Amino acid sequence: MSDSLIHPVILCGGSGTRLWPRSRAIKPKPFLPLVGDSTLFEQSVSRCAPGAGFAAPLVVTGAAHLAHVEAQLDPGSGARVIVEPSARNTAAAIALAALRLDQDDVMLVCPSDHHIADVAAFQSAAHAAATLARQDWLVSFGIEAKSPETGFGYLQRGAAIGALGYQVARFVEKPDLARAQAFLADGGYAWNGGIFAFRVGAFLAELEQHRPAIAAGARAAVAAGHADGQRFHPGADAFARIDSESVDYAVMENTARAAMVPADMGWSDIGNWDALLAARPRDEMGNSVTGPAELVGCRGVLVESDGRQVSAIGLEDVVIVVDGNDVLVTTRAGAQLVGKLQGAVNQ
Amino acid sequence: MSDSLIHPVILCGGSGTRLWPRSRAIKPKPFLPLVGDSTLFEQSVSRCAPGAGFAAPLVVTGAAHLAHVEAQLDPGSGARVIVEPSARNTAAAIALAALRLDQDDVMLVCPSDHHIADVAAFQSAAHAAATLARQDWLVSFGIEAKSPETGFGYLQRGAAIGALGYQVARFVEKPDLARAQAFLADGGYAWNGGIFAFRVGAFLAELEQHRPAIAAGARAAVAAGHADGQRFHPGADAFARIDSESVDYAVMENTARAAMVPADMGWSDIGNWDALLAARPRDEMGNSVTGPAELVGCRGVLVESDGRQVSAIGLEDVVIVVDGNDVLVTTRAGAQLVGKLQGAVNQ
Repeated sequence: MSDSLIHPVILCGGSGTRLWPRSRAIKPKPFLPLVGDSTLFEQSVSRCAPGAGFAAPLVVTGAAHLAHVEAQLDPGSGARVIVEPSARNTAAAIALAALRLDQDDVMLVCPSDHHIADVAAFQSAAHAAATLARQDWLVSFGIEAKSPETGFGYLQRGAAIGALGYQVARFVEKPDLARAQAFLADGGYAWNGGIFAFRVGAFLAELEQHRPAIAAGARAAVAAGHADGQRFHPGADAFARIDSESVDYAVMENTARAAMVPADMGWSDIGNWDALLAARPRDEMGNSVTGPAELVGCRGVLVESDGRQVSAIGLEDVVIVVDGNDVLVTTRAGAQLVGKLQGAVNQ
Repeated sequence: MSDSLIHPVILCGGSGTRLWPRSRAIKPKPFLPLVGDSTLFEQSVSRCAPGAGFAAPLVVTGAAHLAHVEAQLDPGSGARVIVEPSARNTAAAIALAALRLDQDDVMLVCPSDHHIADVAAFQSAAHAAATLARQDWLVSFGIEAKSPETGFGYLQRGAAIGALGYQVARFVEKPDLARAQAFLADGGYAWNGGIFAFRVGAFLAELEQHRPAIAAGARAAVAAGHADGQRFHPGADAFARIDSESVDYAVMENTARAAMVPADMGWSDIGNWDALLAARPRDEMGNSVTGPAELVGCRGVLVESDGRQVSAIGLEDVVIVVDGNDVLVTTRAGAQLVGKLQGAVNQ
């Protein structure tokens, strides 16, 4: 039975390379308290609060991270978990979730490794998106672009749909810097943050139309699956045969019903240590410290230590991370290369 | 009985703050392999090799460092050790050593926490200094000034004494930068590296004249002392009553017989991490790495790790030291402040 609530679908995963060595394959970004005392996953769940019109969440995660998910879910939340037998990207993950909901439920697909500073703005955008989704629009959050980022896809705004949103004129893959600057200057482009609202039936119909094999594979995996308390385990063989494709490629870029709602909510994908520093509260020198540290004459420095004493002198725009047997020191500009370090690759 | 050999007097001590956290009070700089595979102390001893005209060394150290000294001395070297019951600066330490040698022995006082790249030049200067010392000059090594250092005292060259050296016209305490630059431009100034050659009797006579209390105190401490194999323990009470004063203040700045021999021998006092990097072999990017590390796009970076993996990206002129539970990251310019860090002060 459908209801008027919004059904959060929280996607959990990640390889843990870009915030290495704090984030690791065995405990990636969503499960770490990177901004504030709660983890990004916990914040993703708590943003979709029952009192704000959200149903209990449906979490999609891999077996490798199930323990983290269950440890960080409130047992009384009524949350359900879909345990992916393998990683098959977002189209398959969202299809699984859709098949575990009712046709007329509105699902809100949320990555769990982003930070959103303004929860009220998020909830407001979610309700706007849900309203459009009930009209069978496939809705992306169009996150207000604050800088010419080359690491995100962009949505070009089309015709208005009432007061709540716009049609998407075009999806743009990660641009080069010149194009990103042009998008920012134009003002008609927003970041694609991977947050979507769909009516379940509308999503499945579009998936069926544009990627029938993924839809059939997901149905087969659910048919071969079994429930275990709040957990649902799709059939592993059927799931493994599904193409690995993002929901953007599989559905959003093909549907004629793509819409967007503007969202200006202090969003960050915390895509590297530099982005994390930007998302964190900082002192008057622009420094942010977690763990024991003494900073002398430092500016724009992020220290993240698992307990060892960090002493820093005279540094500007540098990130220092101490975790287990690894010490990372990088310029903020160099932070984008962290995922390519041997330690991050070979973990 | 005196002989024609040079008697090395190796002074060992230090608080271990300026190269913290690698150097610590319990194991300060002389006892660490900072440049090459042997320690600075081992190098200080081996520079004064029997084959090059040196007698077995006389080491002066505190009880706290005796174990390091004895562990790093070759048992067959015939070295003797004077164990200071307390720290009373160099005038008292050298007086103790003088009193354990013969009147006509030439002693060569050597700090053990410096690095000297050109051992042959050191030995050559030592023999020149010894020759002048036998003429009852009190001889300092005048180390060729390579830069306008403000952390060293300077010797102003006076009249030549034959071909071997010069009288010292003036001792100059640590200058400000403008004066240091003027000294460098003048060319008549050398660094005072704390290396001295004295005929024992001449030194004791000058000490007696200018600091009779220190001379008397040292005699009393030796009289109250006892030998224990190769070790000599001065009387603790008598030694504790001696004024703590450097040999520069107590003797060198007062004597009319101050001389210097020029020494251009790749000398460094390794007074901080920046100086250590300068003394070390570096790769083509100017980096020097000890321990497991991956450097990406770094230039002028020193990594010193006790075993933890250090990953560094995009850094220029930065020092990274990992030791035990401490991680130090400083600009090379900031390295002079390391000794004032809480960790260094409170160790």
